Amino acid sequence: MKKTTKTLLAGFALSVVAGSTLAQMKVEDAITFRQSGYKFMAWNMGRIKANIEGQFNKDEVIQAANVVQATANSGMGKLFVPGSDKGKGWHETRVKPELFTDKEGVGKVAKAFNEAANEMAKVAATGDAAAVKTQFGKLGETCKACHDKYRKED
Amino acid sequence: MKKTTKTLLAGFALSVVAGSTLAQMKVEDAITFRQSGYKFMAWNMGRIKANIEGQFNKDEVIQAANVVQATANSGMGKLFVPGSDKGKGWHETRVKPELFTDKEGVGKVAKAFNEAANEMAKVAATGDAAAVKTQFGKLGETCKACHDKYRKED
Repeated sequence: MKKTTKTLLAGFALSVVAGSTLAQMKVEDAITFRQSGYKFMAWNMGRIKANIEGQFNKDEVIQAANVVQATANSGMGKLFVPGSDKGKGWHETRVKPELFTDKEGVGKVAKAFNEAANEMAKVAATGDAAAVKTQFGKLGETCKACHDKYRKED
Repeated sequence: MKKTTKTLLAGFALSVVAGSTLAQMKVEDAITFRQSGYKFMAWNMGRIKANIEGQFNKDEVIQAANVVQATANSGMGKLFVPGSDKGKGWHETRVKPELFTDKEGVGKVAKAFNEAANEMAKVAATGDAAAVKTQFGKLGETCKACHDKYRKED
């Protein structure tokens, strides 16, 4: 019985630690993680583009589209922690302060991106190169919409 | 007609450019992309761990497991381009030269990781916290197996 109580307490302590760890994610870690997500997605977007412009490999397009979809649906918005409008991950963040204040606008571009990424994965699975090209164009527009509003120029 | 020919030629030129871009991916770009993939996966592995140890949120575990699965199945092995046993992406690569020579061993750890990641996503979808914990342990072992053999210590 004593042991059970101890275990329960240990479990509780662990959850508090886990909770506080999450709550206190360092700004630089959050920026590093989100820059990593975007960079890995960039590789995969580039692969879809190369398949459209070059020889079309259905399997590679599916692999790449699935990464974009999973990343879009990962809930990575939570990596934009308070205070991370400035700071350095792998490099200085390029986010504009507006991303932290314009909730409605951010919600719109995020929703458009998620929907386009989900559709991209669906279309990729069909192996229809022409449809992939069309959907890739739409997906790219949703990326650009967010970059234009919430990312500083290079 | 002239315009069509021009368009076709432009399309052909684009595909050649895309092809040569892929073939000639710079070592530092390949390292940056793969480091990004692993880092973003680390965020997601950490989230599954936090959910096991703290309050279990089924949706977050699914989000995270889907990223791990898509990354595992992304074919990112091709980012280990010849010559990338040394070099700097976001930071100096920690890969051991053995990864580029031990094809059989690499194939084994890669297969184990892929299978465990696919199973992780399946188990996450059930929302069974105990099963998630068990599978997360197995998945973690496949990560470690590769790190132990093919990644230098910090």
